[in-house]
Amino acid sequence: MPTPEEIRNIVHSYVEMMCKSDIDGILALYAEDATAEDPVGGEIQRGAEVLRNFYALTAPALQVELNGPICVAGRECAFLLLAELTMGDNKQYLDATDVFTFDDEGKITSMRAFWNPADLRPTR
Amino acid sequence: MPTPEEIRNIVHSYVEMMCKSDIDGILALYAEDATAEDPVGGEIQRGAEVLRNFYALTAPALQVELNGPICVAGRECAFLLLAELTMGDNKQYLDATDVFTFDDEGKITSMRAFWNPADLRPTR
Repeated sequence: MPTPEEIRNIVHSYVEMMCKSDIDGILALYAEDATAEDPVGGEIQRGAEVLRNFYALTAPALQVELNGPICVAGRECAFLLLAELTMGDNKQYLDATDVFTFDDEGKITSMRAFWNPADLRPTR
Repeated sequence: MPTPEEIRNIVHSYVEMMCKSDIDGILALYAEDATAEDPVGGEIQRGAEVLRNFYALTAPALQVELNGPICVAGRECAFLLLAELTMGDNKQYLDATDVFTFDDEGKITSMRAFWNPADLRPTR
């Protein structure tokens, strides 16, 4: 099981790779059969190929920054992100809490993102 | 399914009742067969009687305040708390992310708290 420090390092890498739209780098953090539920309550996407398509579509329009502590518990963690979404000349902002679960090798096995499209706002 | 506004109001009530150690008030927010996993990765506690004992033991030693936005997604939400834990003359502080799931009546069916005893610290 990854240590809390290892988990925090993975989250920092994830944020960095999201901001660079480094899709290979993001996928390397995930286990092969991982799932993503983004937003929570929506469709659960499974497997490296599906996640690659998901991030290839979403990451280029997103800048994210950590907006609080990374709360680690057991093999999971939760953290708050401030996301900046660019659509054409239009920027919108959103608060999201992401929850990651890790396997024994420190790969992400599930990602769940808590946010609501109705909460998009024009300012930080 | 509760609306995002209803979910946020329930979270505010939860924080208020935690600070008052209002155990009946806290339990009234929960469904009868709800579960609590606090911290995540620990034992899952189930049912009103078990949760009553859990809160009767923990709430009197805790003051909590919301420390960020309440991220609502579907029938779930996640939010960051700053917790102040009093043991005798000693105060310690902790960041925790709580995740609630709600039923159709707006009662909490599960609570998961992301924190780690190793992260207790002497200052806010």
